[in-house]
Amino acid sequence: MSVLMGTAKAGLKPSGRTDLLVVYSEKPFLVSAVYTKNHFKAAPVIYSKRLTDRRTHFRAFVVNSGNANCGTGKEGLRHAEMMAERVAQNFGLEPEEVLVFSTGIIGVPLPIERVLRAIDEACSSLGPLDLRRASEAISTTDAYPKYAEAPLAYGFGKGAGMIHPNMATMLAFVFTPVKVDFETLRRLHLEVNERTFNSITVDGCTSTNDSFLVLSTLEGEADPADLKKDLYSVALSIAKQIVADGEGATKVGVVEVLKAESEEKARAIAEKIATSLLVKTALFGADPNWGRIAAAAGSAFDYPIDPDRMEIYVGDFLLFKDGRPAGTDLERVAEFMRTHKEVPIRVVLNEGDASWTYYTSDLTYDYVRLNAEYTT
Amino acid sequence: MSVLMGTAKAGLKPSGRTDLLVVYSEKPFLVSAVYTKNHFKAAPVIYSKRLTDRRTHFRAFVVNSGNANCGTGKEGLRHAEMMAERVAQNFGLEPEEVLVFSTGIIGVPLPIERVLRAIDEACSSLGPLDLRRASEAISTTDAYPKYAEAPLAYGFGKGAGMIHPNMATMLAFVFTPVKVDFETLRRLHLEVNERTFNSITVDGCTSTNDSFLVLSTLEGEADPADLKKDLYSVALSIAKQIVADGEGATKVGVVEVLKAESEEKARAIAEKIATSLLVKTALFGADPNWGRIAAAAGSAFDYPIDPDRMEIYVGDFLLFKDGRPAGTDLERVAEFMRTHKEVPIRVVLNEGDASWTYYTSDLTYDYVRLNAEYTT
Repeated sequence: MSVLMGTAKAGLKPSGRTDLLVVYSEKPFLVSAVYTKNHFKAAPVIYSKRLTDRRTHFRAFVVNSGNANCGTGKEGLRHAEMMAERVAQNFGLEPEEVLVFSTGIIGVPLPIERVLRAIDEACSSLGPLDLRRASEAISTTDAYPKYAEAPLAYGFGKGAGMIHPNMATMLAFVFTPVKVDFETLRRLHLEVNERTFNSITVDGCTSTNDSFLVLSTLEGEADPADLKKDLYSVALSIAKQIVADGEGATKVGVVEVLKAESEEKARAIAEKIATSLLVKTALFGADPNWGRIAAAAGSAFDYPIDPDRMEIYVGDFLLFKDGRPAGTDLERVAEFMRTHKEVPIRVVLNEGDASWTYYTSDLTYDYVRLNAEYTT
Repeated sequence: MSVLMGTAKAGLKPSGRTDLLVVYSEKPFLVSAVYTKNHFKAAPVIYSKRLTDRRTHFRAFVVNSGNANCGTGKEGLRHAEMMAERVAQNFGLEPEEVLVFSTGIIGVPLPIERVLRAIDEACSSLGPLDLRRASEAISTTDAYPKYAEAPLAYGFGKGAGMIHPNMATMLAFVFTPVKVDFETLRRLHLEVNERTFNSITVDGCTSTNDSFLVLSTLEGEADPADLKKDLYSVALSIAKQIVADGEGATKVGVVEVLKAESEEKARAIAEKIATSLLVKTALFGADPNWGRIAAAAGSAFDYPIDPDRMEIYVGDFLLFKDGRPAGTDLERVAEFMRTHKEVPIRVVLNEGDASWTYYTSDLTYDYVRLNAEYTT
């Protein structure tokens, strides 16, 4: 493995845990990056996006956790630049070959001197990339590290919703050794992103720092279809780990919309169901409440459904068909929901061949506690 | 007052309270109606919408609470029609002169014989319209009745979000004696609706039964501008009563987006803030978390904001300006939020003259309890 990492402590986390990660490759990475669409972007997102908009090859990236460097004005942008410069100095690179990411509290200036010293320390303690330790170094309120491997790809991430007072961000870095041109990597990346990180929801909120990178070390040949399969598998695993770690979550709802006339429609309806607070609380309460699922499915206003053709399942239990309840024993369905951590919710529109899957967490007391009680 | 009402008990509510209301006018009502945009519509909405799409004058309407008559197939439509026919029989009207509304549990067939008997009873006990009693008769999980009066308009409603297992619906009926043509009434109705019932949110869910009617008895003359002012005042009062009665709500957030370049933009950003779970939990926790407000404001992807021009206030406290924190003492702001039931949140974009206001409830433990624990 030609990818190396180093970690250090800059003292950004109240816990005092490792909060700085540097990843370095002796061969240049071919990089495809996607960032949050939020217009209130953190400084490192603005900084790194400018670079990935005009270059495709990089040698290193640095991530600090515990501070998002967001809402910090011009000083924040200068801090992001200084972080890149310091990594470059350590490795004898140009600053443009280094990307920068941050995650944590919004609106607090970085203690930049401590961060720069930690960068020096991380750069001087390089070892092989360890997915688990890399995830731990960039975690904030995550309950556990998030990483996954497949034959042609491997990666790590962090995120548990945009939780805690001002805590934010989902970050994911997926690597592959496969030699591929930029256009192909970009296409695979965007396709995989739509079906993974862009199809999960914890609280419906879009962070100021969200970033997902695919980095190739361009070492060996493989069929792009095989590469896509493994990028998808790794990204989906990390995405589902994020949902399962959603603030206070006890369950993952897998919302499938099937036999739709278009992917756009399947996706819009799946998103409505996955983000419905009534569906999310019913998931928490193990309540097979098909009325809430039907009402959410009907609320994608641009995509009319035909209630008379729609079928609704929870697990394999048919709950609604022909415009009325299917007469299933709801107590058995509730028992299924109580005893399964992952609950499939299927809406079959019976009008075409398109489908989409969205992953959601349940809405619990702990969600309210985490987000209301931990005040600044 | 030429508007009469009668009530009865059909036994649709577990509490055994009054659950049927008939409203009747000796002079025809000129009626403008708006309904839920949900594609999973309740039978009475489908039935009444067909009528109001092709007629403008009606003599009566009937509302049952405790059962939404939704997800009930063809039988449900027939039941709605039978309710109208029975009211018409009682008053010697054509069935087309009667509108029908329902609110309550989804997916349970109406016990139609009991409903028809209750209609007979309500029609034979007419008295003057009493706004408070009318609201009580159509309430489901509402904690209190909702009504308001102004010189040229008066009305009643119900709604507390789409709460309880399968309980649904916001209903509002606003009356005026002002003589007005249909086109004018329709225009005033739609304008008022956008700034009142279409600018409130409890849980972001769109009910299957939502309906808002304006009914004129065409008695006296008045300036349309004065009429609009009073329709707005009555509708806004009922709308805010619904938000304040949102499931488990302890506070009302009044989200104002000011100095925007267009109303569409002001509205889209206000809606993002008002529906953000992070903003709603911060409201519950009395946490002056401007980072969540800024991140929500930035997440209306079609409407870019400029963080460097944006100002954020809670109450009259300036929290964010020039791209960074304003340095206000946040403990004083938290104290303000703790001690006020209505909390203004103001985002000033400083780019134009347009503004929009959205009304939202806080997200509390009781919201989760009401929606997760009361299982079917």
